[in-house]
Amino acid sequence: MGDLVENKEWYVAAYSPEGVPTSDHLKLRTVSLSLAHESIPDDHLIVETLLLSVDPYLRGTITGTLEGLFIPQYQLNQVLTTFAVVRVIRSKDSKYSEGDILLNGYGLVAEYSIVPSSHIIRKIDPANGISLSDYLGSLGVPGFAAWLGIEVLGNPKPASNVFISAASGAVGMIAGQLAKIRGCRVIGSTGSDDKVKLIKEKFGYDDGFNYNIESDFDAALSKYFPDGIDVYLDNVGGKMLESVLNHVNKNARIPLCGMISQYNKVWTEREGIRNLLNMVGKEVRMEGFMIKSYLHRFGDFVKDMEKYLQEGKIKPKSKINIGIENFLESLNSVFSNSNIGKVVVQVKA
Amino acid sequence: MGDLVENKEWYVAAYSPEGVPTSDHLKLRTVSLSLAHESIPDDHLIVETLLLSVDPYLRGTITGTLEGLFIPQYQLNQVLTTFAVVRVIRSKDSKYSEGDILLNGYGLVAEYSIVPSSHIIRKIDPANGISLSDYLGSLGVPGFAAWLGIEVLGNPKPASNVFISAASGAVGMIAGQLAKIRGCRVIGSTGSDDKVKLIKEKFGYDDGFNYNIESDFDAALSKYFPDGIDVYLDNVGGKMLESVLNHVNKNARIPLCGMISQYNKVWTEREGIRNLLNMVGKEVRMEGFMIKSYLHRFGDFVKDMEKYLQEGKIKPKSKINIGIENFLESLNSVFSNSNIGKVVVQVKA
Repeated sequence: MGDLVENKEWYVAAYSPEGVPTSDHLKLRTVSLSLAHESIPDDHLIVETLLLSVDPYLRGTITGTLEGLFIPQYQLNQVLTTFAVVRVIRSKDSKYSEGDILLNGYGLVAEYSIVPSSHIIRKIDPANGISLSDYLGSLGVPGFAAWLGIEVLGNPKPASNVFISAASGAVGMIAGQLAKIRGCRVIGSTGSDDKVKLIKEKFGYDDGFNYNIESDFDAALSKYFPDGIDVYLDNVGGKMLESVLNHVNKNARIPLCGMISQYNKVWTEREGIRNLLNMVGKEVRMEGFMIKSYLHRFGDFVKDMEKYLQEGKIKPKSKINIGIENFLESLNSVFSNSNIGKVVVQVKA
Repeated sequence: MGDLVENKEWYVAAYSPEGVPTSDHLKLRTVSLSLAHESIPDDHLIVETLLLSVDPYLRGTITGTLEGLFIPQYQLNQVLTTFAVVRVIRSKDSKYSEGDILLNGYGLVAEYSIVPSSHIIRKIDPANGISLSDYLGSLGVPGFAAWLGIEVLGNPKPASNVFISAASGAVGMIAGQLAKIRGCRVIGSTGSDDKVKLIKEKFGYDDGFNYNIESDFDAALSKYFPDGIDVYLDNVGGKMLESVLNHVNKNARIPLCGMISQYNKVWTEREGIRNLLNMVGKEVRMEGFMIKSYLHRFGDFVKDMEKYLQEGKIKPKSKINIGIENFLESLNSVFSNSNIGKVVVQVKA
C-alpha cells in the first residue's frame, strides 16, 4: 500500500501544572500516515494543514488538573488540537472536494490528518479578499471571543468608557475596534510603548498606556478614566482587574475572557482580588464566558466580522511563524510581552 | 410655644474607617423639638418612632471614605437614618391622619421627627396579622434584598443546589425560605450549632454547617454539595466566596448582597479572592446589587412576601432590643456571631 507520508505532530509528553510549558511537556514526533483514499471511513477527509491557531487557552489543556478554565485535559501521548485552516487531499464526503480550503474546529497539530467532516466549521473562499490567517484570528477563536465580550456581554452604549487589557493581543485588538464601531471611548493597556503606538495608530484606540511604565494602575486608570469605567473586557486578571474595580461606574460590566497573567500559576499562588465589595456598591456584573457555549451565535459573528473586514472597519494583525517545528515556541510567545496580534503557525503555504 | 419635647437621637461624632464603631463614633444626645402643628410645613408629618431597622449596610455610612458600598457618608453631627416604623402625631398631609402607622424609608434614629410625607413608603395595617417588626425585616430592607437575590438575580430552577451564607441572618433566613418555595435544595452556613439547628428546624433549610467547626470550607462544600453549587447568595465575601468558586457549576450565579466579613476592614486588608479564573471556565455570573436600584420592584416583592407571611410559608425571626439607648450596641451585634434573624430597636411600644 502506497501513499505513506512522514507526518510531524506535537503531543503531550508530560503535564505542566505551572510555569511556561517546555519541551519536556510538549514534544514533536514523526509518525507514518497513509493518505490512501481507501484508508478512510465514509464522511471523513484527509487534509493537509496550512495554518494552526495558537491561543492562550491551550495552556489550560495540559495543566494536568481540572481547574481555572476547566478544559478537558489531553491525555499523555495525545496530539494537541486547535483551530486550523486545512486543504482537502482526499474526500469521502460529497460536500467537500480535493483542494477545498476548510476551517477545522478540532485540527490536529500535525502536518496531515484524517478528519471526520463533522469537525469542519466552514468552507473558505480564498478569493474573497480575506487572508487565510484571519480565519484563525478575527474570524476565529479570538475574534469570536472579542465579539462575545463586546457585542453580547459588555454591550456598551455609544460614548461609554471602555477599557481593554492585553489590548494589542489577538482578542484585545479586535475588541477595541468593535467598541470603536459602537461609538465608545476606548482605552487599552499593553506592555510596551511600541504596542501603545500600534493600538492607537492601527487599531484606532482613543488612547492607551504601557503597564510596565505606568505601573501604578490606580493612578493610570484615574488619568485615563476621569469619568470611570463602564465596560472592562478582562483578558489578564490579577492586579489590573483589582485596580479596575476601584474605577468602575454604576452597573459596569466586566466580561471575563481569560486571565493571561494567571495561567501559569497554580490557583493558590494567584493574585487575590481584595475589593470585590465594590461590586456590591457599584452593582457590577462580572461574567466569565467560553466560546463553546455560544456556538449558536457563530453565524451572526461571522456575518458581522466579514463585513467589517471587507469594509476595512476592522484591521487585524497576525504574526505568522513558519514551520510546525515552531509550535511550542509560538505557544510560549503568546505569554510574553513580545506578542502582538494573532499568532499563527504556517505549516504549509 | 408649647409642645416642646426632649428628643433623644443618635448622631455621627467621628468617622470609623475600620473596626466596629464605638461610642467615639456614634453618640446619643438629647435635643428639644417642637411638636406643635404650626411648626411643620405643608406635606409634612410629625411622627414618633416605634421601631428602627438595624442593618449591616449602615456601617458603610460612617467609614469617612467612599468605597466598598459607595454609600453617601453622613456628615459629622448628622443624625443617622434607617428604615423605621413610625406613628403619626400631627399631619399636614391629607393622606395621613394622627395615629396612622407608617413605614418611613428615611427614619431618623430619634424618638421624634418631622418627616416630609414623600419619605413614607407605605401605610401599615396593624390588624392584618403581620407583626410590626416584620415590616423592617421580611417586608423591609433585608427581606427585599433576599427576594432580589433569589427571585431576580439568582433565579434558581427547581432542584437547583443553592448555598446561602450568613444563613440565619436577616437576609439569609428569608432567602433560604424563598429558595425552598422554589423547590431548591438549600444549604446554609452559619456560626454556631444552635443556628444550624435553627435554620433547619425553623427556616426549612435542607442542611447547614457551622463554619467555626467545619472551618475547612472546601471540605465542607465538597460534603454538602457533591453535585456542585448552582446559586450562591453571598452575604459574607472573603474565604467563603473563594471556596464557593471551587465548587460552582457551569453558569452558576452569585448575587453579591453584601460582605459582612469584610465591612470592618479597609479594602487593602480584605481577603483576596485568588480563583476568579474559575469564573471563566465555569462561565459564572457574579453581580452586586443595592436595593435602591430596584425600588420599581418593591410592590411585587411586598405582594409576594405578605402572601407568604400570611400563609405561614415564610417564618421570620426578629430580635427586638428595647430602648433607643441600645442602638449602637444593636448595630454592633449584627457583626457578631450572637446575631440571629432581624435586629430591631423598639423605641416606643
